[in-house]
Amino acid sequence: MQLDLLNQLRAQVPLVVNYANYVTPNFVANGLNALGASPIMTSEVDEADDLVKITNTVVINLGTINHYETDLVWQLCTSAVKYHKPIVLDPVAVGATAYRLDIAQKLLQDFPIAVIRGNVGEIAALAQVDWATKGIDAGTGDADPAAIAKACATRYHNVVALSGITDYITDGQQLFKVGNQTPLLPLTVGSGDLLSSIIGAFVGITDNYYEAAQVGCAVLACTGEIAAQPLHSHEGGTFAARLLDKLTIVDKEDILEILK
Amino acid sequence: MQLDLLNQLRAQVPLVVNYANYVTPNFVANGLNALGASPIMTSEVDEADDLVKITNTVVINLGTINHYETDLVWQLCTSAVKYHKPIVLDPVAVGATAYRLDIAQKLLQDFPIAVIRGNVGEIAALAQVDWATKGIDAGTGDADPAAIAKACATRYHNVVALSGITDYITDGQQLFKVGNQTPLLPLTVGSGDLLSSIIGAFVGITDNYYEAAQVGCAVLACTGEIAAQPLHSHEGGTFAARLLDKLTIVDKEDILEILK
Amino acid sequence: MQLDLLNQLRAQVPLVVNYANYVTPNFVANGLNALGASPIMTSEVDEADDLVKITNTVVINLGTINHYETDLVWQLCTSAVKYHKPIVLDPVAVGATAYRLDIAQKLLQDFPIAVIRGNVGEIAALAQVDWATKGIDAGTGDADPAAIAKACATRYHNVVALSGITDYITDGQQLFKVGNQTPLLPLTVGSGDLLSSIIGAFVGITDNYYEAAQVGCAVLACTGEIAAQPLHSHEGGTFAARLLDKLTIVDKEDILEILK
Repeated sequence: MQLDLLNQLRAQVPLVVNYANYVTPNFVANGLNALGASPIMTSEVDEADDLVKITNTVVINLGTINHYETDLVWQLCTSAVKYHKPIVLDPVAVGATAYRLDIAQKLLQDFPIAVIRGNVGEIAALAQVDWATKGIDAGTGDADPAAIAKACATRYHNVVALSGITDYITDGQQLFKVGNQTPLLPLTVGSGDLLSSIIGAFVGITDNYYEAAQVGCAVLACTGEIAAQPLHSHEGGTFAARLLDKLTIVDKEDILEILK
Repeated sequence: MQLDLLNQLRAQVPLVVNYANYVTPNFVANGLNALGASPIMTSEVDEADDLVKITNTVVINLGTINHYETDLVWQLCTSAVKYHKPIVLDPVAVGATAYRLDIAQKLLQDFPIAVIRGNVGEIAALAQVDWATKGIDAGTGDADPAAIAKACATRYHNVVALSGITDYITDGQQLFKVGNQTPLLPLTVGSGDLLSSIIGAFVGITDNYYEAAQVGCAVLACTGEIAAQPLHSHEGGTFAARLLDKLTIVDKEDILEILK
Repeated sequence: MQLDLLNQLRAQVPLVVNYANYVTPNFVANGLNALGASPIMTSEVDEADDLVKITNTVVINLGTINHYETDLVWQLCTSAVKYHKPIVLDPVAVGATAYRLDIAQKLLQDFPIAVIRGNVGEIAALAQVDWATKGIDAGTGDADPAAIAKACATRYHNVVALSGITDYITDGQQLFKVGNQTPLLPLTVGSGDLLSSIIGAFVGITDNYYEAAQVGCAVLACTGEIAAQPLHSHEGGTFAARLLDKLTIVDKEDILEILK
């Protein structure tokens, strides 16, 4: 894994244009800022092209997508193609509503998405694998997250980062796992959104999206473990602040030392 | 008071669909998550029915309501009636603008709202009691919060949770008070929004809305006292994180020990 | 500098109506609340007049402005003129997109803005000074932030607060500097937004906008230094909570003791 990307990110300070949901943008922006990237959010179609022109990456988060803003999302992606900027898609709760699933599939059809980052339910919904429609049960062989991630990556010809207790990163053929975790990360609303935007930051500084997704997952999972170390498993409020603290100083060596 | 609802909530993990304001959704979502419920926010009318179908409760918060989203609010409530899901209304600042008051009254006219949660000014505006229009003065007999809460509950045939230094919960006839408090809770923006959504979570797991509102008020007020214990009364920033920490572990016994 | 305005603010509890961006409203509202002001956010044009009628100040933040909400912004400003309430403008990233620059300039043309608060890039874009269009380099004489601030204030006939490592406050002729700083303040997303709204709170309690802007800058910069004192320079997450804590108790003497 090219963990040197972390130093490269801090040297380059990539700009990440986010179409964010309205629940977690503050946490995501603070997380990107803490790590060393530069976040900007937008809600206006008429400035999309200007922003994408100067950005390193576009991150599309469907957490509170609505029909007033779909033209903005399409313009961000159209400009991303025009200026050869990578796109990361976070298909939040895409398994919960037909509206979100439809938007996500249209995006995947219309644009070359570099990386999809979601949890097992979201990735399974996109992969449209048989077992997914019967519900996800991580305990059965059929519902192996690695297989779901590969099916999704193969279907849409991109990199998939399926995050959970173990993160599975795949380009459809190769598979990389990150086994670091803390219960405090899923307790923190927006930790998945942040992971997508962090992957977005790394995707913005290398053409190797598979490596970028690995590094993004490793950085957040390991920093989470480090931040959680002195805390009890219920201290989610305190953890969120400490996670931001640690994102600013975590380095390659810290990660290599604990990476699973 | 049926404090066993707290254990039941954690066992059941109710889904709470929130039409949230855009100021405090992160805090509200983290608070619900910390307590053991499952929050989701939406801003799209076309996914409202899908979400309400799978939810336990709908919480409508008028904090930043606008005419682009009133159809979403009406659809959420229409679907709530269709699928027999309870609705909690937070009439934020309904006394401050005619627009908000009008929306709140139309909602109360069109839909069976299970619980209204507001402060004394908001509840008085809805109750349209004579004294309210002259301004609220907690020191006069006429402006007794308990009477205002009862007038509001009687007028709209629902449960009212009027929160403040003392919380008053009433179904129009019975009255329950929660006397626990800390100055740090009102110092935290969104603590009222969170209370409404917590009541929403409890309303989603029992048909007894009066009990659910009592338990919601008791849980937040007591957890606030517990979180505030080692802090000075100015440490609102630190308190917000500690409140989330404590919401995850507070149990029936902790609450019974300090409940006033 | 009239630091007595801080006591006056806490005695008067000015209402600050914010057209906020959707990234940092929670932090801004908590900061205003912690300091002793009363924040309200809105996203509905039909309630703008009602809110401005009862407010002390209107703060317009362009951080996520879009064409759905420009009528709201114009109505807020129109009502502010009608009711003689001051307006503070935060031209977020106005140098990054033509859309934002156009909106900011139209606002400045149509309404008497009391104070513009921005960073050197934003103020230079508004000032349209030659050197600004070549990029800002703080090291060259041409790009002197004080000169940029003066040019902007002269152009639009208002007070400009250009914030950065040093804050420059000017009415176009006089210049006041605040030299207090901590690296943790720029690490905190929304600290600029909060500064604009804090200046808004002070502008709402005095006709001397130049003094109000000075006090606003001094209060935030000095409170930042105080909050940062026991922290390492990477602890941005912890700092944000401590900043809120300290905003509640910081007083005139604390500020005078460390003001540079």
